[in-house]
Amino acid sequence: MSNSNFDGKLPPEFWDLASVKDVTIPKELSKPVVGYDFAKCDGAVDYDSLLTEYASSTGLQATFFGKAIEEVNKMINWKLDGELTEDDLKLQSEITIENWKPTPCTIFLSYTSNIVTAGTREIIRYLVQHKMVDCLVSTGGGIEEDFMKCMAPLVVGEFTLKGSELFDQAVFRNGNVLLSDGAYGRFENWFIPILDKMLEEEKEQGTLWTPSKLIHRMGKEINDPKSIYYWAYKNNIPVFSPGITDGAIGDHLFLHSFKHDGRTITLDVASDVRKITMLAIRSSNTAALCLGAGVSKHHVLNANAWRLGLDLCVLINTAQEFDGCDSGARPDEGVSWGKIKAGVHAVKLFSDVSLVLPLLVSQTFFKRQEEFSNKLCAE
Amino acid sequence: MSNSNFDGKLPPEFWDLASVKDVTIPKELSKPVVGYDFAKCDGAVDYDSLLTEYASSTGLQATFFGKAIEEVNKMINWKLDGELTEDDLKLQSEITIENWKPTPCTIFLSYTSNIVTAGTREIIRYLVQHKMVDCLVSTGGGIEEDFMKCMAPLVVGEFTLKGSELFDQAVFRNGNVLLSDGAYGRFENWFIPILDKMLEEEKEQGTLWTPSKLIHRMGKEINDPKSIYYWAYKNNIPVFSPGITDGAIGDHLFLHSFKHDGRTITLDVASDVRKITMLAIRSSNTAALCLGAGVSKHHVLNANAWRLGLDLCVLINTAQEFDGCDSGARPDEGVSWGKIKAGVHAVKLFSDVSLVLPLLVSQTFFKRQEEFSNKLCAE
Amino acid sequence: MSNSNFDGKLPPEFWDLASVKDVTIPKELSKPVVGYDFAKCDGAVDYDSLLTEYASSTGLQATFFGKAIEEVNKMINWKLDGELTEDDLKLQSEITIENWKPTPCTIFLSYTSNIVTAGTREIIRYLVQHKMVDCLVSTGGGIEEDFMKCMAPLVVGEFTLKGSELFDQAVFRNGNVLLSDGAYGRFENWFIPILDKMLEEEKEQGTLWTPSKLIHRMGKEINDPKSIYYWAYKNNIPVFSPGITDGAIGDHLFLHSFKHDGRTITLDVASDVRKITMLAIRSSNTAALCLGAGVSKHHVLNANAWRLGLDLCVLINTAQEFDGCDSGARPDEGVSWGKIKAGVHAVKLFSDVSLVLPLLVSQTFFKRQEEFSNKLCAE
Amino acid sequence: MSNSNFDGKLPPEFWDLASVKDVTIPKELSKPVVGYDFAKCDGAVDYDSLLTEYASSTGLQATFFGKAIEEVNKMINWKLDGELTEDDLKLQSEITIENWKPTPCTIFLSYTSNIVTAGTREIIRYLVQHKMVDCLVSTGGGIEEDFMKCMAPLVVGEFTLKGSELFDQAVFRNGNVLLSDGAYGRFENWFIPILDKMLEEEKEQGTLWTPSKLIHRMGKEINDPKSIYYWAYKNNIPVFSPGITDGAIGDHLFLHSFKHDGRTITLDVASDVRKITMLAIRSSNTAALCLGAGVSKHHVLNANAWRLGLDLCVLINTAQEFDGCDSGARPDEGVSWGKIKAGVHAVKLFSDVSLVLPLLVSQTFFKRQEEFSNKLCAE
Repeated sequence: MSNSNFDGKLPPEFWDLASVKDVTIPKELSKPVVGYDFAKCDGAVDYDSLLTEYASSTGLQATFFGKAIEEVNKMINWKLDGELTEDDLKLQSEITIENWKPTPCTIFLSYTSNIVTAGTREIIRYLVQHKMVDCLVSTGGGIEEDFMKCMAPLVVGEFTLKGSELFDQAVFRNGNVLLSDGAYGRFENWFIPILDKMLEEEKEQGTLWTPSKLIHRMGKEINDPKSIYYWAYKNNIPVFSPGITDGAIGDHLFLHSFKHDGRTITLDVASDVRKITMLAIRSSNTAALCLGAGVSKHHVLNANAWRLGLDLCVLINTAQEFDGCDSGARPDEGVSWGKIKAGVHAVKLFSDVSLVLPLLVSQTFFKRQEEFSNKLCAE
Repeated sequence: MSNSNFDGKLPPEFWDLASVKDVTIPKELSKPVVGYDFAKCDGAVDYDSLLTEYASSTGLQATFFGKAIEEVNKMINWKLDGELTEDDLKLQSEITIENWKPTPCTIFLSYTSNIVTAGTREIIRYLVQHKMVDCLVSTGGGIEEDFMKCMAPLVVGEFTLKGSELFDQAVFRNGNVLLSDGAYGRFENWFIPILDKMLEEEKEQGTLWTPSKLIHRMGKEINDPKSIYYWAYKNNIPVFSPGITDGAIGDHLFLHSFKHDGRTITLDVASDVRKITMLAIRSSNTAALCLGAGVSKHHVLNANAWRLGLDLCVLINTAQEFDGCDSGARPDEGVSWGKIKAGVHAVKLFSDVSLVLPLLVSQTFFKRQEEFSNKLCAE
Repeated sequence: MSNSNFDGKLPPEFWDLASVKDVTIPKELSKPVVGYDFAKCDGAVDYDSLLTEYASSTGLQATFFGKAIEEVNKMINWKLDGELTEDDLKLQSEITIENWKPTPCTIFLSYTSNIVTAGTREIIRYLVQHKMVDCLVSTGGGIEEDFMKCMAPLVVGEFTLKGSELFDQAVFRNGNVLLSDGAYGRFENWFIPILDKMLEEEKEQGTLWTPSKLIHRMGKEINDPKSIYYWAYKNNIPVFSPGITDGAIGDHLFLHSFKHDGRTITLDVASDVRKITMLAIRSSNTAALCLGAGVSKHHVLNANAWRLGLDLCVLINTAQEFDGCDSGARPDEGVSWGKIKAGVHAVKLFSDVSLVLPLLVSQTFFKRQEEFSNKLCAE
Repeated sequence: MSNSNFDGKLPPEFWDLASVKDVTIPKELSKPVVGYDFAKCDGAVDYDSLLTEYASSTGLQATFFGKAIEEVNKMINWKLDGELTEDDLKLQSEITIENWKPTPCTIFLSYTSNIVTAGTREIIRYLVQHKMVDCLVSTGGGIEEDFMKCMAPLVVGEFTLKGSELFDQAVFRNGNVLLSDGAYGRFENWFIPILDKMLEEEKEQGTLWTPSKLIHRMGKEINDPKSIYYWAYKNNIPVFSPGITDGAIGDHLFLHSFKHDGRTITLDVASDVRKITMLAIRSSNTAALCLGAGVSKHHVLNANAWRLGLDLCVLINTAQEFDGCDSGARPDEGVSWGKIKAGVHAVKLFSDVSLVLPLLVSQTFFKRQEEFSNKLCAE
């Protein structure tokens, strides 16, 4: 029987078997399920084909890993190969981010605190260092731990270590990663004097501090190429963190207030929400790579509702939709809000980020590193 | 053989069977597993015993539901039956919350946005109306949807409704709950004039707005006893929301800025973190009931680290620990940070909140409603 | 604007707000979200309305709990209030289950091993004792632990007890429930002589044992009204367990073979699959209540594929669909296979069974107990 | 301060910060958290170090992926490099598996049905073809779909395809993989004649069929090197499937019974449980790699309880422990039962198998392929 929906790509023997009627099935279905065949390897594994071709033909979450690679590569193609028109540039001049350099595709990267706690922080830093992304969004922990890591190492521990014993040792547990209380001590010694200066600038020059300004200032002060935010500062990549006070930064604002008669700096979140929203609505195209969920993911999607949706979107997290939390929402929930454009092949990959991010980057951004360097980092 | 660790409470026939050696097993183990016996009901179900006695003896998550009831009842006992000393009162005078009325146990209630989207909002409002809790923490959506619900109903839908079709109808999906875009329209008509007034007050009276002040102002303006935040305002219960700009409130701050040459109100998060931390460290005892996870849960725990830990703690969420996110952390991770005191029987119940919250309240706060009214709401 | 799809049931003020177009939204959407209002209770909670009316209007998983109650009540209505025709009876005579008494709706109840380990076992027993269900399916542990519980108590423990310490004490952990090795000892003393007799019957009378025959025999021998399978035997309710050898029963078949020159009884699974499939295809209507997932759930659905689908279906488990396992499949996956009829409002409730089963039974089967007794247990 | 527990391996600057007391922390903690540094790559990614060294130092689930590689390599080392003593061989002669060839480490591989549905089937086949594993355990779907795949392709689809539309087309959905009903038709045409012959052999030669015998027979008949079970048959690797009738094989036993007056073959599960248990208890060392959970995982662990535990163990699945199901149990629950030896570094990796299995094999079995071929496949 005829099967005109499939452009001849679907294996005909599949359809010969079934009495297919006239239901429209998406063309993506035309991939036969096939895994990587180690028996055909001649001594070495071809990771490029294992991670792309076979991943997408394997089914289950491997399919979504394959799709995530495709979608991220589309982001990169748009960014590196697209062209901006004069009209684009006129609109983009309204984006009031210092030294903003528009490209045909603005890539938002969001991540939760644990991504920075873990070794995935080095991957984030790599992306920021090479100007591969345009805007960062994270929660308080995702900001402060990057700085602490410049001051003291974290170590791999166990999820099962006893809390009371760790507490007695002044060792804190974040999943299976351990931080020493001493890291907080060093952070305090470094951060409080910065706050002193910032408060002085607020009083004397009328500076209105916002989370994004604070983070760039911290990035400037840390002056360490191991830091994500050093590079964000250097490369004029804005970092938004509406809930920034929820963690050590908040703690130190609290402490700092005691040094100054109960008042630390003013930290205004209203200006920042204007900034990220303008960035979204004035970009020609926008793309999001959201690692983990919660506020950091939602903030990227919410900002893009004002442009009637992201053009490209990849979400990687372990959250489920059944409890109605935004964290676990399928991309299609975002479509109803206009956070993602209808028709976009938004990908949700269910995985712990640490398992897939390095592999994803190896098959996408890394392959175009030289072009990023030449085109965007050169000046 | 003898089994002195169990105080004779453990069924001796259990231990007769095993050659138990000298390992210390907690006394809680002494409950035989037994379910509710409907066959013994005489026509009617005794929900009180089903929900307490049998729950805790059933094993699996029912055990934790039973423990959550016990722990919340402990919070209430401490609060209603405890006494404050003069020293307590001296310390508590430092809590700079207007009209703060200390009790021997400060109860923090946190909840994610979806809890307010769903009908669980009525349960939260009930607790706030009767002064059963002392401090609220939520994210942006958990604030704004309470107000929208005063303006337009939400309806129960399906998780599977197609995003593009809903978008075409201007209907937004939150899990299986639907909001109309019109609710946003009404919210805008109501909120923008309030922001106008607030901006005027900022300019003329030098008011420094914070999320907690903004929320109380909104609660005052809505003037509707269906609202959680109307009651929070009325009852002087502070509401913290460090990431408040992540949602419709942020959107309207953005919109409002266009009415006023690019500047809306200043919204300072630094003052608020001082406020919640002081509340935690100056309370004689603290307890937390965290519904859902993310920033709202973490913010409560983080504030309590500064007093070396919560005295009582119940977490209800569906998040898992394996990805190292704070959302899914077991309470024992909080112990390592000093967010929860060592030795506290902190309960983590794995459940969608909508399934258990009404039942939990029916077996705890509701049973003491009259006392709450007499003791705390009378003045 | 007009909204003819909703029959006037949807609150008009919801739709006034949105510019609704011509998309068809199911009528179920017409419920406004509303939670239980404790403030309106006069001293006592009305659990009936809390668990039905409000549950279904709350959104999130509470909606599905409300739907599960509706669906199970439909099963009961069909069963108790329906009529069998002569044609039905003719077909049902092919069901070769001893003393089979057909009703207009055959209810399959499946459950995983942990449901029997926990106190939910008493709920299962209640349903079987009162002939409220027609066919049971479980895995090996779901069979054997019912018998062990007649011999020795299990106790509530902790998920975090150390395995090596428990092993040294000969205490086994099943989640947060503890079994003593002694229970296994008693089981052995009881079971091996039964196997001796069964082997003799096989040799002398040519009995071909199957899991369902073995379980009924065990139910007869235990002769204890606390046992699920005692009642299954008494009430001629078949129990299927294709993977029955995976657990203590398998272990004892292994042990028994050493008593008899390497051969224990023959345990044929082929006859049982014929039996359950005939039961499904010759019933007038079929319904399934599947507690937990895995083989026990799949076996019920698979059998019903041969009648082109269940007429009513409620699944309660915590499994997710993303890894493609049948356990986490949404009911709609079953529709593609013809395991569930298209158009059936199959409910998937995401919850630990221990939290919701007693409440579900209290609002469904329990309310009709007298009718079940009169109509089905009388003879 | 001194930190003698760490053998100088822990970065001293970590501990200088904390006032570490005398708590014993495992030596594994000595790895500083560090991610892969793409900035240091010279044009090419070194996947070997990314997947081993960096994985284990990244924290979160990446750590467990790194540990899984280590643990599987230990299985291989024991198997290929160990030596059997005469005593070993004497004991192993009791393992009544035809042509059984013992090695110093017996590796059990279990997998759920979806692993065979997906392209991961090719990875399993590779392991079996090269005699890299010694015993397979799966459920019914994990057996039959391997054969169907020899007859008709499966294709990658979408989780969201509508069940009723697929049903109308006679296309079945397994997660995001589609099967045609025609595949079942072809399977029927092939399988029923085999059952005819088997029934004849049962009647004439008194063969007592078991799942393991049936699967080998099917593997022989399919005679196709694409099949897992063709190689299992060829290489004398036993395949156990206690719940084998739960799926298409069960369906066809049902159908077959109508061809033969209501009786198909007898399929005895009691003999198989003796076989797998003897295999476990008479092996010098045992190791398990369990992909997915449910009956297939439990059956491997249960069999090994009779030797007081596995010596090496890797579990990869997405199940959680909170509902008390064996599927989500941490390995330490198995230790309490003696299913895993105390002190074994059993690894539980939380991941969809399709994302990690090919990478795991590329870093373990694949690297020793030649040795496997020379040592075990040569004869």
